[in-house]
Amino acid sequence: MIGRLNHVAIAVKDLAAATAVYRDTLGAEVTDPLPQPEHGVTVVFITLPNTKIELLEPMGEGSPIAKFLEKAPDGGIHHVCYEVDDILAARDRLKAQGARVLGDGTPKIGAHGKPVLFLHPKDFCGTLVELEQA
Amino acid sequence: MIGRLNHVAIAVKDLAAATAVYRDTLGAEVTDPLPQPEHGVTVVFITLPNTKIELLEPMGEGSPIAKFLEKAPDGGIHHVCYEVDDILAARDRLKAQGARVLGDGTPKIGAHGKPVLFLHPKDFCGTLVELEQA
Repeated sequence: MIGRLNHVAIAVKDLAAATAVYRDTLGAEVTDPLPQPEHGVTVVFITLPNTKIELLEPMGEGSPIAKFLEKAPDGGIHHVCYEVDDILAARDRLKAQGARVLGDGTPKIGAHGKPVLFLHPKDFCGTLVELEQA
Repeated sequence: MIGRLNHVAIAVKDLAAATAVYRDTLGAEVTDPLPQPEHGVTVVFITLPNTKIELLEPMGEGSPIAKFLEKAPDGGIHHVCYEVDDILAARDRLKAQGARVLGDGTPKIGAHGKPVLFLHPKDFCGTLVELEQA
């Protein structure tokens, strides 16, 4: 069912500093910061040959990554995102197997303009998993 | 400098259960467990079209992932591994920029039979980073 690893998301408190680590220290290609107020984050994409890393900085009140950063002030890997061909079929398959889909199970439009869902970390090896329609 | 994302490593207490999550619930291709006593882990590889996920279960006394799992009993993402063309040049570049390389800075032979180094999470957005010679 799952296809490509679309991205690994790393939450950070200081996006400029994190971008410098990836651009200058690790020598990777980085984008300009992209504010996504509807998702409560500002994002920098790190382009690797086979996938991407997304650096996320909290934006505004109640950012979905604010709590995570309280517990992990240095930052850390927040989630992984796998692509699926059909997100509704994926959701139904997961629910039929007893896995917990977060929210009300209705896909939302994610940061790349495609439908996404998040899965409960307790059901997926302690890892927050995002599914994105390919 | 960094190239492909070679893998994302997820530490788990119960490799059979984690493998079932990826094989049965997420419908991914998984390998048989591969004991790696020299690294203190047993590994299952999840083959995705563009990269791989490695599920790691502690093996023996003093496994390098035992402490991590004490703090994260459900499991969690342990490290990411980026490929580099020349691991010694990468190490020297990182050290020149003040980044901390773990151990004595001498690459060890990693789980794929290639030279690897680990970088200090505090210098890399709270993320343990492995570099592997491509």
